[in-house]
Amino acid sequence: MSVPAINGERLWSTLMEMAHFGATPKGGVCRLALTDEDKAARDLFSRWCAEAGCDVTVDKMGNIFARRPGRDEAAAPVVMGSHLDSQPTGGKFDGAYGVLAGLEVIRTLNDHAVATKAPIEVVSWTNEEGSRFQPPMVGSGVFADTFDLEESLAVKDLEGKTLGDELTRIGYAGSAEVGGRPFAAYFEPHIEQGPILEAEGKVIGVVTAAQGQRWYEVTVTGQEAHAGPPPMDARRDALVGVARMIGEVRRIGVDHAPDGRSTVGFVTVHPNSRNVVPGSVFFSVDLRHPDDGTLSTMDEALREACVAAARDEGLEIDIEETVYFPAHPFDADCVRAVREGAERLGHAHQDIVSGAGHDAVYLSRVVPAGMIFVPCKDGISHAEIEYAKPEDLTAGCDVLLHAVLERAGR
Amino acid sequence: MSVPAINGERLWSTLMEMAHFGATPKGGVCRLALTDEDKAARDLFSRWCAEAGCDVTVDKMGNIFARRPGRDEAAAPVVMGSHLDSQPTGGKFDGAYGVLAGLEVIRTLNDHAVATKAPIEVVSWTNEEGSRFQPPMVGSGVFADTFDLEESLAVKDLEGKTLGDELTRIGYAGSAEVGGRPFAAYFEPHIEQGPILEAEGKVIGVVTAAQGQRWYEVTVTGQEAHAGPPPMDARRDALVGVARMIGEVRRIGVDHAPDGRSTVGFVTVHPNSRNVVPGSVFFSVDLRHPDDGTLSTMDEALREACVAAARDEGLEIDIEETVYFPAHPFDADCVRAVREGAERLGHAHQDIVSGAGHDAVYLSRVVPAGMIFVPCKDGISHAEIEYAKPEDLTAGCDVLLHAVLERAGR
Repeated sequence: MSVPAINGERLWSTLMEMAHFGATPKGGVCRLALTDEDKAARDLFSRWCAEAGCDVTVDKMGNIFARRPGRDEAAAPVVMGSHLDSQPTGGKFDGAYGVLAGLEVIRTLNDHAVATKAPIEVVSWTNEEGSRFQPPMVGSGVFADTFDLEESLAVKDLEGKTLGDELTRIGYAGSAEVGGRPFAAYFEPHIEQGPILEAEGKVIGVVTAAQGQRWYEVTVTGQEAHAGPPPMDARRDALVGVARMIGEVRRIGVDHAPDGRSTVGFVTVHPNSRNVVPGSVFFSVDLRHPDDGTLSTMDEALREACVAAARDEGLEIDIEETVYFPAHPFDADCVRAVREGAERLGHAHQDIVSGAGHDAVYLSRVVPAGMIFVPCKDGISHAEIEYAKPEDLTAGCDVLLHAVLERAGR
Repeated sequence: MSVPAINGERLWSTLMEMAHFGATPKGGVCRLALTDEDKAARDLFSRWCAEAGCDVTVDKMGNIFARRPGRDEAAAPVVMGSHLDSQPTGGKFDGAYGVLAGLEVIRTLNDHAVATKAPIEVVSWTNEEGSRFQPPMVGSGVFADTFDLEESLAVKDLEGKTLGDELTRIGYAGSAEVGGRPFAAYFEPHIEQGPILEAEGKVIGVVTAAQGQRWYEVTVTGQEAHAGPPPMDARRDALVGVARMIGEVRRIGVDHAPDGRSTVGFVTVHPNSRNVVPGSVFFSVDLRHPDDGTLSTMDEALREACVAAARDEGLEIDIEETVYFPAHPFDADCVRAVREGAERLGHAHQDIVSGAGHDAVYLSRVVPAGMIFVPCKDGISHAEIEYAKPEDLTAGCDVLLHAVLERAGR
């Protein structure tokens, strides 16, 4: 049977309309989880889904599911989705593309009156970014039994507001249980957030695995002092030590090229006064690699380099690992469905490893899961200038439709 | 005529009582300029001065002057003082010692019924630290015609409150004109805020000059991006560049040992999210040296090193110099009066250069000025563990009394 083409113009205009919520002057989006902007985005998505004939339910984590019935309602659904929250200076596509591509698949099936055997659902997961509430990917993480529901509802933002209270405030503390039901498959389309597809001239990335990630919180303590009188050799400047550590973190990523990644993204300096030698510095480290053994080597190198820098500078150091995702392959049948979809559609494609965490990574612990990547300009995301071409977004959505139909049956 | 000894126990208990205002759990003081804590400190100081028979006046910058009449009221006064505000995590002695040593001199003169020819004043200058309101030393700076009164009253803290409004709020927007009157001499006793006197076993530092200072604001811009997908060699990580610059700043101070000082005390990272490659970083640089030519060499080295680091990392950089105090000698007669006081009292002393900015530096632009340093433990100040020995504080106050009497006449 032929597969209809999705409506690329509709997909694009849907993305642009969603980007109004939290729009920034520089063309990006600031739509932190469970803010008024996130509520507005959720409301619009829910309305669109209802208008597409879907039954919309919200679970206790605020995850939104929109269901298009199948001929066999007892069959496990094929699910598509991603998230609607963004980084503080995020773009229009990260997350929103996966959710709205799922909606576009349902609209296309409606347009062409295509019935599927299995039900089809599109989901928007709560707080994927982890910018406002730590940890990231908490909605999918609870769904996948990785996190505890009550503990996750109790996490607080910097102002002390809990995730659960904020869900209630915006009207998305649903009644459905979180998880505990099978999916036939879960597909998450996403911009690549890296430069590989663009550099290789490919339209579709067939995501075979997710990189392993290790996150750390490091506290370095020296002695604060006046910036004038103490001679240089009498100082214990925490920031000077941390500057060396930041250089070492970078080196560790470079040493494990091409797949290694290492980032210091968050830093606070104490007391952070222009004429005071910094007494302590807190910073985060994010290490990633698709091979778990190599990631362990990077972990050892990090600890060794930071301890050595602290010792040389006469500083105390505390290194705490806060997140560990082992490297993880996606489901072979889902990966094959994506690859075959790209081939049938004639789109240039290649296998690729996801460098980022995604809801699909948690989902893959409990259901068959796969991802579809499309290029983004200059590999940039988590930034206001994030951009993806309409034709590439259309291609990714067409591949999604093929993969979903292959898994759901006609 | 013999000079009476000051009452060291009274001086110490006065310092300890003042340290209650803004006292921190770790034994330090957080008494930011024009906060409720600063008001309480000002109120107590004013009351003590009135009880010592002084006439207390407040000028339009909130500087508090307490005057003990001289036999010749037409003579220019000899003035002692410093400041009562502190750093956010400051100590009990920085500033407060200079003010309360001045009060102790007046109390001692009263105890022994010593009349002076010239009037004697003790002053507490507004906002010396510059932690809440930029720039530092603004009260003495306006007094010395370095800053404009109206502009200084209009500067805002991070919450947008103006210095002038806050002066009014705490009741210290006085009516006296700021400056425009001669001092016979100005003496500022202060803890050294460095380790030299302690290391050399000296009790008194005869301060011959103030180091030159240059302050900078540096903004480094790269490209924020997701911490996972972009390969290391595709990144323009502003923080990696800044880490190199922090190392270079340190090197510049070390290269100009023993007198060079270089500090990065303030850093903000944008967007400061754990899984985002930093797109921009703002930081401060503080360079100091007692020789102006060497300070210029350090300035050139700073600009060259930062520009090179930015270029290597593919970053944009903007370097703005915000403060420039040329190196400055103190008044020869004031320096001599301090040195002779120490010699007459038999205190081990040495000439020393001030590495820090002080109100005395601005005062020295318009009146004869000098400073007296006493040791502080491990050279540490601008820190809660800042400590000075009671016997050293007593020695410094005795030297102050000698110098004041020498300049004021009996």
